[in-house]
Amino acid sequence: MEVPVGTVLLEAAHKAGIYLSSICGGDGYCGKCKVIVDAGQFHTHPTTLLTQDEIRRDIVLACQTTVLSDMTVTVPKSHTLETTQILMDSDAHRFSELPGEARAGLFKFDPKVKKIYVEMSPPTIHNHTADHERLYVAIREQVDAPIMQTGFRILQKLSAVMQASGYKVTATIGRRGECTELIEIEAGDQHARNYAVAVDLGTTTVVAHLMDLTAAKTIDTEATYNSQINFGEDYIRRIIYAEENDAFEEMQDRLVNDINNLVVTLASRKRVDLQDITTVVCAGNTAMVHFLLNLDPRRIRREPYIASASFVPPIRAAEVGIQINKRGLLYCLPSVAAYVGSDIVAGVLTTRMYTKKGISLFADIGTNGEVVLGNKEWLVCASSSAGPAFEGSGIKYGMRAGAGAIEKLTIHNNGTAEYRTIAETHPVGICGSGLLDTLAGLFTHGIIDRTGRFADGQSAVNEGDEGNQFVLVPASDGHNEIVITQADINNLVRSKAGVFAAIRVLMESTQTTLDDLDAVYLAGGFGNFLDVKNAVTIGMLPDVPTEKIKFVGNTAIAGAKTVLLSRQAMRTAEHIAGSMTYFDLMSHPGYMDEFIRAGFLPHTDLSLFPSVAGAATNHV
Amino acid sequence: MEVPVGTVLLEAAHKAGIYLSSICGGDGYCGKCKVIVDAGQFHTHPTTLLTQDEIRRDIVLACQTTVLSDMTVTVPKSHTLETTQILMDSDAHRFSELPGEARAGLFKFDPKVKKIYVEMSPPTIHNHTADHERLYVAIREQVDAPIMQTGFRILQKLSAVMQASGYKVTATIGRRGECTELIEIEAGDQHARNYAVAVDLGTTTVVAHLMDLTAAKTIDTEATYNSQINFGEDYIRRIIYAEENDAFEEMQDRLVNDINNLVVTLASRKRVDLQDITTVVCAGNTAMVHFLLNLDPRRIRREPYIASASFVPPIRAAEVGIQINKRGLLYCLPSVAAYVGSDIVAGVLTTRMYTKKGISLFADIGTNGEVVLGNKEWLVCASSSAGPAFEGSGIKYGMRAGAGAIEKLTIHNNGTAEYRTIAETHPVGICGSGLLDTLAGLFTHGIIDRTGRFADGQSAVNEGDEGNQFVLVPASDGHNEIVITQADINNLVRSKAGVFAAIRVLMESTQTTLDDLDAVYLAGGFGNFLDVKNAVTIGMLPDVPTEKIKFVGNTAIAGAKTVLLSRQAMRTAEHIAGSMTYFDLMSHPGYMDEFIRAGFLPHTDLSLFPSVAGAATNHV
Repeated sequence: MEVPVGTVLLEAAHKAGIYLSSICGGDGYCGKCKVIVDAGQFHTHPTTLLTQDEIRRDIVLACQTTVLSDMTVTVPKSHTLETTQILMDSDAHRFSELPGEARAGLFKFDPKVKKIYVEMSPPTIHNHTADHERLYVAIREQVDAPIMQTGFRILQKLSAVMQASGYKVTATIGRRGECTELIEIEAGDQHARNYAVAVDLGTTTVVAHLMDLTAAKTIDTEATYNSQINFGEDYIRRIIYAEENDAFEEMQDRLVNDINNLVVTLASRKRVDLQDITTVVCAGNTAMVHFLLNLDPRRIRREPYIASASFVPPIRAAEVGIQINKRGLLYCLPSVAAYVGSDIVAGVLTTRMYTKKGISLFADIGTNGEVVLGNKEWLVCASSSAGPAFEGSGIKYGMRAGAGAIEKLTIHNNGTAEYRTIAETHPVGICGSGLLDTLAGLFTHGIIDRTGRFADGQSAVNEGDEGNQFVLVPASDGHNEIVITQADINNLVRSKAGVFAAIRVLMESTQTTLDDLDAVYLAGGFGNFLDVKNAVTIGMLPDVPTEKIKFVGNTAIAGAKTVLLSRQAMRTAEHIAGSMTYFDLMSHPGYMDEFIRAGFLPHTDLSLFPSVAGAATNHV
Repeated sequence: MEVPVGTVLLEAAHKAGIYLSSICGGDGYCGKCKVIVDAGQFHTHPTTLLTQDEIRRDIVLACQTTVLSDMTVTVPKSHTLETTQILMDSDAHRFSELPGEARAGLFKFDPKVKKIYVEMSPPTIHNHTADHERLYVAIREQVDAPIMQTGFRILQKLSAVMQASGYKVTATIGRRGECTELIEIEAGDQHARNYAVAVDLGTTTVVAHLMDLTAAKTIDTEATYNSQINFGEDYIRRIIYAEENDAFEEMQDRLVNDINNLVVTLASRKRVDLQDITTVVCAGNTAMVHFLLNLDPRRIRREPYIASASFVPPIRAAEVGIQINKRGLLYCLPSVAAYVGSDIVAGVLTTRMYTKKGISLFADIGTNGEVVLGNKEWLVCASSSAGPAFEGSGIKYGMRAGAGAIEKLTIHNNGTAEYRTIAETHPVGICGSGLLDTLAGLFTHGIIDRTGRFADGQSAVNEGDEGNQFVLVPASDGHNEIVITQADINNLVRSKAGVFAAIRVLMESTQTTLDDLDAVYLAGGFGNFLDVKNAVTIGMLPDVPTEKIKFVGNTAIAGAKTVLLSRQAMRTAEHIAGSMTYFDLMSHPGYMDEFIRAGFLPHTDLSLFPSVAGAATNHV
């Protein structure tokens, strides 16, 4: 790979197809793009993010380093994001076997795009209805389609197909709100060859499920990293990057490319013809949907914090470059606001909290922390800018839920930790559920106090490069130790405080008490081994009986699939999005107070956490 | 112009941009493509269509002649159709000042495509509706648009336009049936710049009216020959030509080119920006609409005689190549059947016969002869394959209504003819109204008998190249004589017989008597000097009191304009087209008998024409 002298190493790596992790978008303050220089001349800016040891080993931040000669660079394995590499099957599996799956029977099965086999009487002198209207009549005998539309190209070809097939054709009809579009016509009976892809457009991970629309079932699943990730781990950073570098199209291209990789992988694995994939339904946060469609996302991060479109009309998937049937349709679930996207609407749809008499709380802890409170009468929502600490970001050994991640951890009384890793390999880092367990364990054992600071005189706490740290996994032959630092803990506490403060604002505003809460739904990529009780222990979720808390997994993909299979579900999603009241926390007078009060373990006000109060008072 | 040896002269002329008149599509039997060879070698097939004198003067049929060397050829002026030449203003005027004009107030003014100026409150933190939905709300405050759609390109740009304009924009909305599409968004108030073109897609003439959609008025009119004409004067010939030569695209190109010529001429004359023309509405026979859209027209001429589409959905005008705003919409009025097109529906709409208690008859005598009978309860229709004799086709000195055409003619008792020509030039031929006068005059003066044959012993009748003929205009210094031949008369009688037989079938089938007829509407390019009484005298129209017969002119353009200005009118047109009962005359058991009975002047059964019977019995 040749690059000009002076090229930034991060960029050079990118050009070589190697995507380095980067939270800050190349601004040099996240420290995630560390690489080892094996040979060659370079210039690097001074940074506080490298230890003396790392500097001695010629480790640099790729974003702060420019190339001066031929160079040989090693990328530490755990820091690489190979976006073109599809996640392992076992990882994709994690996203498909969760309780938040679309359940049959809740909505009428009536896919957004349908193939209908129609046999018509051929025209005669005495039955001279034109082909176009003859087909409409035949379609309407089978489906409810009072308002029909036909694009010009289909109009031009339908006579030929009808004649050649002896008036036995398969019509593909796509629903565009109240209108029904005739999007394809094929000779003969092809109605069983109708597939769709549901997509969860995550900031970190893009998940796709391939569905058979005739059998109404999921036939395969796949996931990949969102390859925008080296422009910033959170979407605010990516918007800034795109704005500064006029890279909106590149942002779109990457996301579309990710989707295409998933679609092609699924289709080839299941021997499905791409032409027979007629539908894509996406759920994702507002920024991701804007990136996908190349809608202007700039005011998502700037006052007045609005979307260009919340209710995105169906468009042809080919218009954004998604490689399914070239007349196939792309649907995006509706969003509520700039910071409450269609993934959250999908969550409300999936949990069915909008149908219940009792009040439910829904919290989606991903790169952001969105919360929804309500019942069949009302719904309120908010988004905490808590940051993606529980996705491993800003945490020294934090990582996403992948092979080698500690996903479950127990601290014993002797200060040692017992853990379980994904794929049962030697641990390389800690993912969300492991971090939750760690924080709860440190707190309940008094290793950290209510402010989150390491308590004095704890034997398991030592002094590391970045101050006090707790050793979770000691170093062993060839493996680094894995520790949690004071800075990590502070990040996690800030993150949980943001989520809980948002919950408090919603509960206070609606005068909802703890007793009023019938159910708490926790969504996100935590994985099935999440210990929900620990989410209460650290004060992230309200202190309700554990049996009321349900981990619902990836509700974004579940909601996308529900909508794919049922027009009624899409109408319900639109109703949910349209009726939800959004609280802007940044301008809310009480939020900052709530955030500060939630910055303790479990909270400043222990009366809010009666079940935790015992542990907490032991070591104030 | 270079062409290979062996090229057919008609084709060579065409390549040189000279369009010769041709009814038969180059099959050598219409005799309309006569040219004079001034120099050069050629080969020509023997033909009975040239007189000895013509052959001596090196006149050939261009379609039967192949080029063998360099040639110089003169095209007789009266036989040229210069398709790129727009008809003179006076001709266009003929089409605009007719009583069939769209009348204000009959339908609610509510154009198919509207520009609406909307001022919105810019978003704030407390009013965070997304731009797309904000615009929808604002549009819906002004217009009834429950179902809205936005194309992807507009969705992508709307935020930028809204922001740049301070949320003061002009939205262009187009109605697609029950759906309303946001087709354009512009900064600031542009609502007054909204223009449309109504088009009458005639087989012979294409007429366009430029309308100001804000002021709801016609601002200019223009007409041109349909430049498909050298592939055949009637559309059946053109379909055959297109099928044999795979020339469907060329057919479309020519028609689109004609429309573009008209649109550009009108727009430049009135200094209207093409981008501000948002709508085109077309009315025409079913074949012309199929050619325009490149829909398969082949079964229009073959069993089962059906259209590919009768109710054509709105499409983007740019999709067929019409050069208005690239997102502007093209609407076609609905048609009834292969031989009863949207021009006839426009006629019914314009005459308002569908609203009346009494029964009306509508007859459109153009290249074909379509008739509609009915009232507000029922409508029946049929098409006679009478041929375009009254458009001058198949008539030795027949011509379209243009400069030099005899449009009014009276035969005096002494056998001389008094006439009036269009543009008051020396006569070069006879157009429809003149032919009607001629036939009626010859009959009432006993110059022809009830069978249409020249009576014996008429001094004004002489023997011409083609048998007996009547001299209408004697030869004079440099001008040919103008005659009407026995063959001409036979053609005209066949043509009127076709129309009347169709009327009879409809009246008999619905048990409508002469007395039941409240009104007879005659449409077509006859011009204002049409003597409607003569249409009864020759037995083309039923014998009702003259005051009941109204010449309504070009109802196709009038209907297109009405629809342009009112969604309600389009819905009415759809209702008319959907409820009209079509009689296929070719398969109708009584039609042939009626046709034979109508082959006399005025008819075999004189009791049907009491007002004419006196004249008729004088010279049986």
